[in-house]
Amino acid sequence: MNDAILDEGFFTVRWHEGAVELLDQRALPLRETVLRFEHAEDVARAITDMVVRGAPAIGVTAAFGLALGTRELPDERGAFDRGFAALCERFAAARPTAVNLFWAIDRMKARRAAVGDSPVTAVREALLAEARAIHDEDVAACVQMGRLGAELVPDGAAVLTHCNAGALATAGYGTALGVVRGARDAGKKIRVFADETRPFLQGARLTAWELVKARIPVTVITDNMAADLMRRGEITCVVVGADRIARNGDVANKIGTYGVAVLAHVHGLPFYVAAPSSTFDVTIPDGAGIPIEERSPEEVRQIGGVRIVAVDVPVRHPAFDVTPAELVAALITERGVLRPPYEAAIAAMLTRSA
Amino acid sequence: MNDAILDEGFFTVRWHEGAVELLDQRALPLRETVLRFEHAEDVARAITDMVVRGAPAIGVTAAFGLALGTRELPDERGAFDRGFAALCERFAAARPTAVNLFWAIDRMKARRAAVGDSPVTAVREALLAEARAIHDEDVAACVQMGRLGAELVPDGAAVLTHCNAGALATAGYGTALGVVRGARDAGKKIRVFADETRPFLQGARLTAWELVKARIPVTVITDNMAADLMRRGEITCVVVGADRIARNGDVANKIGTYGVAVLAHVHGLPFYVAAPSSTFDVTIPDGAGIPIEERSPEEVRQIGGVRIVAVDVPVRHPAFDVTPAELVAALITERGVLRPPYEAAIAAMLTRSA
Repeated sequence: MNDAILDEGFFTVRWHEGAVELLDQRALPLRETVLRFEHAEDVARAITDMVVRGAPAIGVTAAFGLALGTRELPDERGAFDRGFAALCERFAAARPTAVNLFWAIDRMKARRAAVGDSPVTAVREALLAEARAIHDEDVAACVQMGRLGAELVPDGAAVLTHCNAGALATAGYGTALGVVRGARDAGKKIRVFADETRPFLQGARLTAWELVKARIPVTVITDNMAADLMRRGEITCVVVGADRIARNGDVANKIGTYGVAVLAHVHGLPFYVAAPSSTFDVTIPDGAGIPIEERSPEEVRQIGGVRIVAVDVPVRHPAFDVTPAELVAALITERGVLRPPYEAAIAAMLTRSA
Repeated sequence: MNDAILDEGFFTVRWHEGAVELLDQRALPLRETVLRFEHAEDVARAITDMVVRGAPAIGVTAAFGLALGTRELPDERGAFDRGFAALCERFAAARPTAVNLFWAIDRMKARRAAVGDSPVTAVREALLAEARAIHDEDVAACVQMGRLGAELVPDGAAVLTHCNAGALATAGYGTALGVVRGARDAGKKIRVFADETRPFLQGARLTAWELVKARIPVTVITDNMAADLMRRGEITCVVVGADRIARNGDVANKIGTYGVAVLAHVHGLPFYVAAPSSTFDVTIPDGAGIPIEERSPEEVRQIGGVRIVAVDVPVRHPAFDVTPAELVAALITERGVLRPPYEAAIAAMLTRSA
């Protein structure tokens, strides 16, 4: 699986011939460029710079990045373990909001601990195997979310999505777009409206690109058109991904998600969140505790290198917002579709296996 | 007034030395370029191409364009009148939604009728005088809206606005931004959050530019950040302009306005619309009857010449939406602040003079 190109002719992140390879998502849809990384530091920087983005994909990439980094560490066990701990800290600093990053790092740490006194060469192999497992499990979780979520999407539906929660945001198949693919694979006719998702334009650039590859009809709209389409009755439901879900079901996701959730609620449309169990963070009671990344104002002031706001004009750039659980009709996970009250449903889901 | 640069060092539209001059709003904020038009056809095309935009500014520009066009018509009265009628039709086809365009054309037609059998040279002078009057009255209406609207805006307010309803959308001072200027001129501390307003970016490019010139603090946000700012309590009220207001108070304005109105309502924030009496169209019972312009998909697919959506991906581009009157806390006109029920308030406002 790791070396394989996905059915649709691309991959998001893979381990290939002793290095980490990423499809450069900053260049899409204009250029399909694969970047090859032979140093862990460069992988960490690629996460910060959004070469790869999307909570599950960030987790998978960090896992491979850690496996890669262990090859740069000395064979002496003490030095290896100090270096591994530093690598884990480095990756944890790459981006703050998506909890899958920390979840993946914790899994790698646990695997390191589990192999205990093994020779360092065996530890390296174990960590690469763990990263491969994280990758493969992510694809499997997406396919399963797609299967379960498809039941919520009626035949003929027009699904509104925000940002990109697709194959490009995961190891493959996608979370929100996994639900879309699942509905398609279940034989349903389905269409997608993709919010362009300023400032980084993940909807316009990435969701449109991958749905065209998947031959699923997609129409791009500016973020501010969603309300009007809802009012006109052109949207059936909303499906988005998540970067972190708190214990009570509050959802942090790409900036603009909260507004879409409010609009869906007002227009009587179900708002669904698709996310694997690795996205849940029960250490945080509610959305107020989720750290929200502030990114560079220049990402708002420019689009593709074209300046749209004078450099001295203040701008804001919170990269995420929090949607309160009350606005979420269901949480679609690989372990089942959760309905309110979420705190109990989430706790039960996390104690059972997939 | 017509030849004068506004206090803030720019003008939107003026009659100058026998021609129409427009500040090229497509080039802002990167370049401050004044375009000079010596042919009516070029003025009409400038309206279609959004060299100038904003409902009141379009009306003023069309009036000057008609005055300019009469100079290209023969002196023989029959031919002049046929030419004038054709010019009126040409300008009426420039853009469909802003009713101020048709209102201005109707005023010019009425002036033509009023001067009856005067020599054609005198008719030309009368039409230029009418265009100058439309211009000057627009500035005066904006200042008056600012004075009246300022009372609705508390000291220390953070006003969210969408698109540009400023000096650049009018002959000067602005409608929504006229209210902001009015509050500032009344001694209130006031700050503005400007939605960037995709696809044409009137907020990021124009509202920010003119508020910086006016030394009023402004922060640009992407359209999809407004909901989060409201939830965080950072917005005091919303003030926008309008392109056409139906008999019942339904408001057509830039795409995205409806979504902002819904979000303001849900967050308990007042949503105000500032528009001169020329923006009201009582021939249309409600918003469903307002023609909504569909503009080129390429305006969505590209930003400043940079492609963000592959050329073969479908996009939507309704340039306006309709906000139902129920979501509007007050309509601010130069003839008074209207409160619900709007149908009676609008009818009464239109029968009294300013």
